[in-house]
Amino acid sequence: MSRPVIFLDPHPRTEEMVYDADARTALEALGEVIAHFGSRAPDELVEDVLPRASVIIGQTALPKARLDRAAALRAVLNVKANWEPNIDYAEAQARGIHVLSAAPAMAPAVAEFALCQTIALLRGLHTADSRFRAGEMAMGIGGNQEAKSLYGAEIGILGYGNLGRALLPLLQPFGVTVKVHDPWLSDGYLAAQGMRPAALEEVLAESDVLFLLAGVTTENEGALTRARLESIRADAAVILASRAEIVDFDAFLTLAAAGRFRAAVDVFPEEPVPADHPWRQVPGVLFSHHLAGGIRASYARIREMMIDDVGQVLKGLPPLRMQRAEPRLAGLMRSR
Amino acid sequence: MSRPVIFLDPHPRTEEMVYDADARTALEALGEVIAHFGSRAPDELVEDVLPRASVIIGQTALPKARLDRAAALRAVLNVKANWEPNIDYAEAQARGIHVLSAAPAMAPAVAEFALCQTIALLRGLHTADSRFRAGEMAMGIGGNQEAKSLYGAEIGILGYGNLGRALLPLLQPFGVTVKVHDPWLSDGYLAAQGMRPAALEEVLAESDVLFLLAGVTTENEGALTRARLESIRADAAVILASRAEIVDFDAFLTLAAAGRFRAAVDVFPEEPVPADHPWRQVPGVLFSHHLAGGIRASYARIREMMIDDVGQVLKGLPPLRMQRAEPRLAGLMRSR
Amino acid sequence: MSRPVIFLDPHPRTEEMVYDADARTALEALGEVIAHFGSRAPDELVEDVLPRASVIIGQTALPKARLDRAAALRAVLNVKANWEPNIDYAEAQARGIHVLSAAPAMAPAVAEFALCQTIALLRGLHTADSRFRAGEMAMGIGGNQEAKSLYGAEIGILGYGNLGRALLPLLQPFGVTVKVHDPWLSDGYLAAQGMRPAALEEVLAESDVLFLLAGVTTENEGALTRARLESIRADAAVILASRAEIVDFDAFLTLAAAGRFRAAVDVFPEEPVPADHPWRQVPGVLFSHHLAGGIRASYARIREMMIDDVGQVLKGLPPLRMQRAEPRLAGLMRSR
Amino acid sequence: MSRPVIFLDPHPRTEEMVYDADARTALEALGEVIAHFGSRAPDELVEDVLPRASVIIGQTALPKARLDRAAALRAVLNVKANWEPNIDYAEAQARGIHVLSAAPAMAPAVAEFALCQTIALLRGLHTADSRFRAGEMAMGIGGNQEAKSLYGAEIGILGYGNLGRALLPLLQPFGVTVKVHDPWLSDGYLAAQGMRPAALEEVLAESDVLFLLAGVTTENEGALTRARLESIRADAAVILASRAEIVDFDAFLTLAAAGRFRAAVDVFPEEPVPADHPWRQVPGVLFSHHLAGGIRASYARIREMMIDDVGQVLKGLPPLRMQRAEPRLAGLMRSR
Repeated sequence: MSRPVIFLDPHPRTEEMVYDADARTALEALGEVIAHFGSRAPDELVEDVLPRASVIIGQTALPKARLDRAAALRAVLNVKANWEPNIDYAEAQARGIHVLSAAPAMAPAVAEFALCQTIALLRGLHTADSRFRAGEMAMGIGGNQEAKSLYGAEIGILGYGNLGRALLPLLQPFGVTVKVHDPWLSDGYLAAQGMRPAALEEVLAESDVLFLLAGVTTENEGALTRARLESIRADAAVILASRAEIVDFDAFLTLAAAGRFRAAVDVFPEEPVPADHPWRQVPGVLFSHHLAGGIRASYARIREMMIDDVGQVLKGLPPLRMQRAEPRLAGLMRSR
Repeated sequence: MSRPVIFLDPHPRTEEMVYDADARTALEALGEVIAHFGSRAPDELVEDVLPRASVIIGQTALPKARLDRAAALRAVLNVKANWEPNIDYAEAQARGIHVLSAAPAMAPAVAEFALCQTIALLRGLHTADSRFRAGEMAMGIGGNQEAKSLYGAEIGILGYGNLGRALLPLLQPFGVTVKVHDPWLSDGYLAAQGMRPAALEEVLAESDVLFLLAGVTTENEGALTRARLESIRADAAVILASRAEIVDFDAFLTLAAAGRFRAAVDVFPEEPVPADHPWRQVPGVLFSHHLAGGIRASYARIREMMIDDVGQVLKGLPPLRMQRAEPRLAGLMRSR
Repeated sequence: MSRPVIFLDPHPRTEEMVYDADARTALEALGEVIAHFGSRAPDELVEDVLPRASVIIGQTALPKARLDRAAALRAVLNVKANWEPNIDYAEAQARGIHVLSAAPAMAPAVAEFALCQTIALLRGLHTADSRFRAGEMAMGIGGNQEAKSLYGAEIGILGYGNLGRALLPLLQPFGVTVKVHDPWLSDGYLAAQGMRPAALEEVLAESDVLFLLAGVTTENEGALTRARLESIRADAAVILASRAEIVDFDAFLTLAAAGRFRAAVDVFPEEPVPADHPWRQVPGVLFSHHLAGGIRASYARIREMMIDDVGQVLKGLPPLRMQRAEPRLAGLMRSR
Repeated sequence: MSRPVIFLDPHPRTEEMVYDADARTALEALGEVIAHFGSRAPDELVEDVLPRASVIIGQTALPKARLDRAAALRAVLNVKANWEPNIDYAEAQARGIHVLSAAPAMAPAVAEFALCQTIALLRGLHTADSRFRAGEMAMGIGGNQEAKSLYGAEIGILGYGNLGRALLPLLQPFGVTVKVHDPWLSDGYLAAQGMRPAALEEVLAESDVLFLLAGVTTENEGALTRARLESIRADAAVILASRAEIVDFDAFLTLAAAGRFRAAVDVFPEEPVPADHPWRQVPGVLFSHHLAGGIRASYARIREMMIDDVGQVLKGLPPLRMQRAEPRLAGLMRSR
């Protein structure tokens, strides 16, 4: 009996990210691997492999016409953290093809980064070093006039998905209360997870720490207008961790620079941010250049989850580790 | 029947720190309060109050001669986080006088700060902002070449007391393993807390993250010599969070500056650090000027614990919130 | 615009179980409810409602021919805890119809019952009362010669699904280690949940407490043969909690009666068990008559999850609370 | 230098309980062991060993006169779970002698037993087996008409000490709320442990599950009078787990027999209960004959804690595992 074909077309993921020596050994034990790196696989290669492929790893475009020719296909593993618009999700579901994303693999790295951003904003750790080097004499309470604690804080989360699920257990030891606004999730579900569902207005106005964790969709792009940003609790710590497009980004920076709230920003409407872009000089914001998720440990997790789920799928079993597409919602996501 | 006398002599703690309006109301409900702020209480005042005081809040010197005259005294609440050498601890115990410190009240603030230092060192958050402002174009994995994750890290702790107890629950959600070296604690006790007891050498050499949490005693001052510091695992993150005197401080900074390990330093052998002290310019160290513990939330916790335990003691019940002195060990502590 | 039609056909669930006053109010707020209780809905009614129904609550037979006529159908909520064979699961998936079961709603009740059975078997609580009433004088260690503790026990689980997920957090405070055998779950998934994947042989032979939690499929019916049951660790506590068909039931009772292991049995190959059936007199087994899951609180949870997920589905959002069918696996399940 | 003397006088603990081969090896490594089993050590032996003993393990009477002669004594380890009245606790403290009890070692066994009693009362597991054997046909909801769930229950605890601390983590996964009445503990302390302090009246009247965990003192003997027992919430589950003397025992049994509340009773005013005592035939109570704590695992824990703390004390370090006497409170305890 012929071995199942696994097609790797993971660009912009590199060979190092998704197909190191261990991953190669593991995947080759599961099937015949055909791989293309460095660019999207050429159409010719895709068309050649498509009828035989049991699994596709990557973001290969899969409109209905291609799915019609993919008779053996059981799963598509998008090894990025978001849904691409180049797949016909409903058709894939109709054919019983699992469409998966690696978002759960990236979430822990983002969550630890966000926790660090949060405490840094609250406690002023990100400025402590430069204040010390500049000769500031204040110490103890004298140097902590602006400092606040995460213990017992009122947390607000906009958009509770993979990031929120990874972040929540890191926050719980601090004895926080958590409000969530997520129009895709029922109140009962959120309550069962130990959080309080709340309206957008309440989450903005009544949180000491506000995590912006929503992906961007055709429905929420720019939803955090300047007016809404102005309703954020004074001096709250705001962590922009998912997609910048959900906020009026310039208003967000302006308000943060004015001291209206404390802000940490890891994502931008345009990436990479040009070297001389004025965003880079906005004062009073803790910036990082999209560093939250993309660490080596995240790619190790992607490889582990990918191998696990390829194994499941080739046995005719459900995938367990990666996230499954919800066809309608995946179709709403705005990719970049 | 006369009301019990509560004597406040908390300098260098200020009135704002330990006796705000709520604390005043609470303590006055419990007894007659006699308070002195701004300096140590003059001997005259101490001698006058001593025979009547049921509770002393502060670091008033209490040698045996004074304890002999303190017939009503039931408790001494040191509202600092360390044991002062000006009390005859054994004599106090012999008389059934509780001697307490506020160390547990400061520990949560130190723990959250230390967690933030740790993730910052591992993930490079403390340099991300300046790199971004300087125009660095790398992002994602490109900007994360040095980044490591706290998830699954091997943690080492030197000295497991109040700080360790506060820190441990913050680390546990990251799935870490924890080794502890503490010569005052039995292996069985540490194992029962879910940690692995280990020799000093092992903790230094085999930890990804090393927390230096020991107080300084006549026994461990300077114990972390240059040779021992050189045995720290390459590129480990080292958090110096309790007392600088346990390390050869200059060797520590030299090794950190040389990139031998990553280091965060909040405490110094001399504090405040003079404005032009060369320490302030050592590169490659994440400095803060003794900011970890002294935030407003810590003083609120001190007040809460203090009021609780004064109430217990005046009812003839054991104190519950503050830390009790172990006479022999308290006598070993080196104060500053 | 017309309101969505919700069709209730929940027999053998009764009106009291799934459609009390609160549920009625909630469902009627979501759509037009057409309900039939007391028997399976007659074909005539089903055929009439089918073309209009957006949601079916119950176990209505849904072969492909019916699904072809169910143009508005978005979800089928089976309010039992198992998958019925009368649905064409693959066809439902192809049409984007969610097929859901209430298994997660029953699991907490089963888990608490199983925990109680476990400790009772280990500690002898289920015989303590009758021993006391019979005049036994032994007390303390004298009465505890057979007693064992759950703390630190080696736990084995066969089949890790809804029951296992509910049970695990109840066991964790006892500091247990957990081995799982489940051929549908990857080793990586189990390890990520904090359990150790293990072969069937190892789980049987090396567990102090053995939970039989697997549903019965065409693949595992009778899998626990007498020979395998004889490999169970001597004096282990064995909890038969899901479906009796996975074991050679008579061999199981025989071995338990002989003291080969301790056993609690809540499910039987034939239910209800006839009043005079010899099973009822097998000594040395802790029996209950399928009492683990069916308590009022479970039905309250079913109603809550059902209302939540009907709400989600009618908004075009994914269901969150009930369990989704995996088409191939649902088709393998053996119903009664 | 001479080795420290460890004096074992643990009756009614037996050699098997506290001095098995491993304990012997461990203690003999720490010092010279002089042991007496089978009865309280004769005065002659005590007087002979007293001046040399560094540690006493057992309940040897230690009035002031003896302590005056015990120049080397550093610790007394009572290997029972309660405080005996035959020690001058204040004098021991004045001399810096640690007085310890093994109560924390017994608590886990009691906690798991109490959890099992609780779920059994709520779910009817303790009667399920006999109902089944008697031919009852009801199953599922039909057999669960009286069944209640522990999930989400309102818990009340009278007396929060070692038992409560062991029990709380077992209850928390059930999502319960916990009210505590304990006149020795401040509201702030209880709140910091995640429980709600409450008046006795409220705990009795508003708990679904009521744990009676208080030791008996000169202050609370018989405190739960018939009138107070009548204020218990109807149909609550009441677990009498510490000392029977805190309740009007006959009234307690009468009310339980009348179905006023559900009750599990493991302790009695007179133990062992005579074989023909009428208590043994009171219907509607789940009895056990003081089986909750005294299992082999508890004695293993006692040995482990004892060895650990003897080691600490002989190094001049504080004991860590056993419970320290609070002199005034230990003096209030009523022994049997």
